[in-house]
Amino acid sequence: MQKLKVAMIGGGGEGAFFGKVHLRAVCIDGTREVVAGALRSSAQGSMDAAAQWGIQGYPDYQSMIDAWKNGDLQLDYAVIATPNHAHFAPALACIKAGLPVLCEKPITLTVDEAEILAEAVQASQVPFVLAHTYTGHPMMMLAKEMIRRGDIGEIRKVEAWYNQGWLATDLEADGQQQAAWRTDPSKTGISNCGGDIGTHAFIAATWVTGLGLKRVSARLNAFVEGRSLDDDFNVIGELENGGTAIITATQIAIGYRNDSGFRIYGSKGSLEWQQEESEKLLVKRGEHDETYFIGANFTFFPDSIASYLRVPAGHNEDFFEALGNLHCTMERHIRIRRGETCPAPFEHPGAKEGLAGMQFVKAAVESSARDGAWVSL
Amino acid sequence: MQKLKVAMIGGGGEGAFFGKVHLRAVCIDGTREVVAGALRSSAQGSMDAAAQWGIQGYPDYQSMIDAWKNGDLQLDYAVIATPNHAHFAPALACIKAGLPVLCEKPITLTVDEAEILAEAVQASQVPFVLAHTYTGHPMMMLAKEMIRRGDIGEIRKVEAWYNQGWLATDLEADGQQQAAWRTDPSKTGISNCGGDIGTHAFIAATWVTGLGLKRVSARLNAFVEGRSLDDDFNVIGELENGGTAIITATQIAIGYRNDSGFRIYGSKGSLEWQQEESEKLLVKRGEHDETYFIGANFTFFPDSIASYLRVPAGHNEDFFEALGNLHCTMERHIRIRRGETCPAPFEHPGAKEGLAGMQFVKAAVESSARDGAWVSL
Amino acid sequence: MQKLKVAMIGGGGEGAFFGKVHLRAVCIDGTREVVAGALRSSAQGSMDAAAQWGIQGYPDYQSMIDAWKNGDLQLDYAVIATPNHAHFAPALACIKAGLPVLCEKPITLTVDEAEILAEAVQASQVPFVLAHTYTGHPMMMLAKEMIRRGDIGEIRKVEAWYNQGWLATDLEADGQQQAAWRTDPSKTGISNCGGDIGTHAFIAATWVTGLGLKRVSARLNAFVEGRSLDDDFNVIGELENGGTAIITATQIAIGYRNDSGFRIYGSKGSLEWQQEESEKLLVKRGEHDETYFIGANFTFFPDSIASYLRVPAGHNEDFFEALGNLHCTMERHIRIRRGETCPAPFEHPGAKEGLAGMQFVKAAVESSARDGAWVSL
Amino acid sequence: MQKLKVAMIGGGGEGAFFGKVHLRAVCIDGTREVVAGALRSSAQGSMDAAAQWGIQGYPDYQSMIDAWKNGDLQLDYAVIATPNHAHFAPALACIKAGLPVLCEKPITLTVDEAEILAEAVQASQVPFVLAHTYTGHPMMMLAKEMIRRGDIGEIRKVEAWYNQGWLATDLEADGQQQAAWRTDPSKTGISNCGGDIGTHAFIAATWVTGLGLKRVSARLNAFVEGRSLDDDFNVIGELENGGTAIITATQIAIGYRNDSGFRIYGSKGSLEWQQEESEKLLVKRGEHDETYFIGANFTFFPDSIASYLRVPAGHNEDFFEALGNLHCTMERHIRIRRGETCPAPFEHPGAKEGLAGMQFVKAAVESSARDGAWVSL
Repeated sequence: MQKLKVAMIGGGGEGAFFGKVHLRAVCIDGTREVVAGALRSSAQGSMDAAAQWGIQGYPDYQSMIDAWKNGDLQLDYAVIATPNHAHFAPALACIKAGLPVLCEKPITLTVDEAEILAEAVQASQVPFVLAHTYTGHPMMMLAKEMIRRGDIGEIRKVEAWYNQGWLATDLEADGQQQAAWRTDPSKTGISNCGGDIGTHAFIAATWVTGLGLKRVSARLNAFVEGRSLDDDFNVIGELENGGTAIITATQIAIGYRNDSGFRIYGSKGSLEWQQEESEKLLVKRGEHDETYFIGANFTFFPDSIASYLRVPAGHNEDFFEALGNLHCTMERHIRIRRGETCPAPFEHPGAKEGLAGMQFVKAAVESSARDGAWVSL
Repeated sequence: MQKLKVAMIGGGGEGAFFGKVHLRAVCIDGTREVVAGALRSSAQGSMDAAAQWGIQGYPDYQSMIDAWKNGDLQLDYAVIATPNHAHFAPALACIKAGLPVLCEKPITLTVDEAEILAEAVQASQVPFVLAHTYTGHPMMMLAKEMIRRGDIGEIRKVEAWYNQGWLATDLEADGQQQAAWRTDPSKTGISNCGGDIGTHAFIAATWVTGLGLKRVSARLNAFVEGRSLDDDFNVIGELENGGTAIITATQIAIGYRNDSGFRIYGSKGSLEWQQEESEKLLVKRGEHDETYFIGANFTFFPDSIASYLRVPAGHNEDFFEALGNLHCTMERHIRIRRGETCPAPFEHPGAKEGLAGMQFVKAAVESSARDGAWVSL
Repeated sequence: MQKLKVAMIGGGGEGAFFGKVHLRAVCIDGTREVVAGALRSSAQGSMDAAAQWGIQGYPDYQSMIDAWKNGDLQLDYAVIATPNHAHFAPALACIKAGLPVLCEKPITLTVDEAEILAEAVQASQVPFVLAHTYTGHPMMMLAKEMIRRGDIGEIRKVEAWYNQGWLATDLEADGQQQAAWRTDPSKTGISNCGGDIGTHAFIAATWVTGLGLKRVSARLNAFVEGRSLDDDFNVIGELENGGTAIITATQIAIGYRNDSGFRIYGSKGSLEWQQEESEKLLVKRGEHDETYFIGANFTFFPDSIASYLRVPAGHNEDFFEALGNLHCTMERHIRIRRGETCPAPFEHPGAKEGLAGMQFVKAAVESSARDGAWVSL
Repeated sequence: MQKLKVAMIGGGGEGAFFGKVHLRAVCIDGTREVVAGALRSSAQGSMDAAAQWGIQGYPDYQSMIDAWKNGDLQLDYAVIATPNHAHFAPALACIKAGLPVLCEKPITLTVDEAEILAEAVQASQVPFVLAHTYTGHPMMMLAKEMIRRGDIGEIRKVEAWYNQGWLATDLEADGQQQAAWRTDPSKTGISNCGGDIGTHAFIAATWVTGLGLKRVSARLNAFVEGRSLDDDFNVIGELENGGTAIITATQIAIGYRNDSGFRIYGSKGSLEWQQEESEKLLVKRGEHDETYFIGANFTFFPDSIASYLRVPAGHNEDFFEALGNLHCTMERHIRIRRGETCPAPFEHPGAKEGLAGMQFVKAAVESSARDGAWVSL
């Protein structure tokens, strides 16, 4: 089996962090490799970074796509790890050129862009996977599967959250790069906390349950002085089946790292999951709690998930493996299109879910500006 | 030291449960005893129940109060454990007669009643303690004390919740007594879930932080068919300092027992506490988590709390002991009024907090009826 | 129903702690009360302490027993809460006089005394309950019941432990009373750590499984300089069915409070319980974990245990309630002897188990002195 | 920076599992790659497997080493992932040829072999890393570092354990491959449970504390009928400083996955760590617990460990990353030998620790055969 060849767009800067994360996730299965990159916004920076990574460099993404089109470069898909405002252009260029895309979240900077991109993906049928990393966690996939097959009945209520503390102080004033771009509207869009981590909670609430949101009422705060964008994000939403979703995210919860998770209450049982203990799924259906753990040998995993697991029980697969699973899903799409034998890809989020996330954030921002008035998605 | 003599009003019925709980909490320290009671609504039932309990019976609370006034019965305080709609009359009668009252929550059935009662308590200065049992947990008391002295800085956000699952199905249709009265507006008032358990979350959010709520936006649900009152209760509130409170309660979370707790985020740190693991307080102020445990020997407890603790570390004090602490607070009020030496009582909730809770529920019900419009308290 | 009348022997001193604990456990159900006491070793101290407790005082236990024999004092049972070396004489006196005894552990100071006492109990059939408090925890009772009925098959291995840290430094040099008598051979016998807490682990291993120990190999340490008795206690034992028991206890585990618990491995499943989270029992029988919680409403409790529970799920019953359950068991023995209707008492430890515990400690001390040679019980 | 080139010896069979695990660990950092392999014992199988992996195949390890010696193959180090009995020969061959080795544990089948190999490593100074994967967990490394610098004072006692349940039934009778070779003395040596997982507990007890074991008293069991080798392994050991170690391992603990961990008690504090929650280290030094979590941004990590971390707090690095860290250590040894700039390698276990582990198991087996008599290492 030949390794898939992957191009990186962005992710190569000095303070950049997610480029390397994708590199690891690409490599982890030994079936994919990063071979080329347009790793930075400047042509020179891009070439230098590629040299450092030991891959084929290009001055910009377009020339890399062209090289592929011309047959000068072999590629199977591209990873987009640029800052948020620079997702749209390369993603659209790849899709239009027919090159599959695994794109960092949020899908674009604006809803308008997201609509255009989602339409292009839909029209072209070129594989597009959105890097909502947590959806690659097998126990989150299991939760989705259990709900789909009716294990906990009709969904009544969902709580999904994401608590962080790293922006509890004015970090951007000290020039911390991650803080600086996230709190800058020109780079991050209309929402900081909501866009950055509220969307994870949104995906947990909607992708896991399979239910969209009809409308939202929101209260956004900017607790740290001097911020124009939210660092705290609270939404009550109405699910399409009439249920209620409580979606909260904050960056001012001192001491909380990436405390993200969900509790889902159905008419026959409840599910609870937390990202920082991603190896467990808590299931409540009667008088006692059931806890399920990750493990390739466990028979309770349906085939659709078991094929993603790498080790027997007792050794956790965590962050890199979860992201690796999204790359796996991309790999399966590609191999199946080629006629290779390979297990079916899981329904991980794509352009449609990315667009919904953008609409969600926009509606929440609007609702908050109108003091919590309901806004339809 | 002579034992305090306690009268019970209500709490003696067949399916009654909380009468016995108070009996245990009265007895647990060996310094108080239940001596008399008007335990049921019917005269005969009342006398029979008292005989069963081995205490002096009275046909109704008024005749018991009269006996005390006449010097025929020695009493130090009364416990009110009647159904919600029957708190007001006996509580007011006791206060007017000068008999201290430890009253079950909610303080009354309506805000109007609560106002009258709170005024009477304020005017008379007769001790009145509201049985918000969880406020008797030493780690919840410690959280209040830490916030008061500034340990976590200015409060920015509070999350307080109470998740139960026992009303996830139509239990009242089967005649289950606890379910029947709670879902019946004539006995339980304008809100089931909000009044019964949402108020616990409200107290956690306000009493622990020392901050009142200015206004609320609410979404109440009745998920189980046939219910006129809420079995799910969700509120976004604005704290008096401009902070945000997320207060949620539900009775349809299958498999959740009494999952009540809070997370409080300040400008210098965070606190987290859960009722079902009441012996722990999680404190986050820097790069690692600190967990504090209950224990009479621990020096980090201020005197105001240490005097309530009964055993050294490693043996938990739980539900009965927490309620016992509220009886302790009542005992201290009484002994100090008498000039006996005794540690100062902790500031546990009283009539004022009871009134605020009623106003909170009323405002939430109104907001929900108006599709989440903000309602001031 | 008339309250049972209880006499206290010992437990009334200044620094004493367990007397008050028993007082609470006697009172907690409202069906028993402490009425008399010989609370200290000196006659005057005894009378003074009784006055302080508000009960009938006696200068010594013998005169109190005599008063009961003569009909001058109504009593149903006695609680023995004297220091370890002073259990034997009053316990034997009570039993010989026909007065039921609830005795603190260890049952006596020496194996010889324990044999005499156990024989007297056996011969007289006077109820005798040993205060191994943790055996009163409903989830520990449930573990015993599950094993008895075969839920986890044949027992292969048991691990039982008790980790404390309070004697990690030379506390007795500072005159701390609890440390002083425990490390003094004249008051505590041949073993400090083993006798004080190792016996709890022994009871967990044997009472819960229903299996005795045939022989032991031990390594005892005195880590803190100047100690003649062990502050660390490690035993490998052979169960009567050939299985293995690992029984460890330590007082030098800094930061550990009362970390006591067990893991039991059978041919069909495993059970795990920890005293500091006494409300849970972890059951492992297949691919997922099952966690059971305390709660009067849970149907998985057999009647033999359900009758001991005081509150529905979600509110824990802990230390005082567990000890209260041993008093309950005593109460049931007494009421049944009298012909009153009352649920059957649970098989809590008595004189036989107390004797076995003494034999266990003696054998461990001997084995350790012989560098771990096997010693039969 | 050029990628290191890695050869795999063994690990390519059908039911093989650890070959793939090493492949992932090699790849995960993007700085190393597997380029060649002698993946199976048969020449043809070896070539086929290499083709499948997409790497250069060799019929046997010797021809691969020869190719490297001759300059026909570029290699930086070899990974040995053969069955236990086949570690020694290729490891020795590599070391003698001057090729660095990362070898699966146990280092060899016998103590004699281990001595020869350790001597060869010592003499040649060729880098040799033993794949005790858990020692790659950053929190386990932090525990070692804290003890080294005296954070918890003098070590008094260590408990280290490894509980599994997968061999609780007669799996080998059904032909399960992993069970079959582990319970077969010809392939696994003198001990199954002790050699396979008891050694992990041994390393935890000795490598983390920096203290060797002087002597052991052991009780080994074969609970499942028909087994000649132990499936349960219990050791009391004396540390070189006179402290006590309790080292236990079992494969019959139904429902336990890889429940491995340690508790270390020093004169100033305690440390506790569990492999299945590898992201946390529990530190006890006073009246409250401190919990430290993994995270590249945390300043409490000394440089010696921080350089191994891949992501900021809140995203766990687990099994593959831990093994990856051992490959990192190997990489650093190699790059430093070459004069490249690179952080210092951590003192991960090597041949010396591997030999000590073999001696430990041998002594335990002998002690158990002599009914627990002390055996010196």
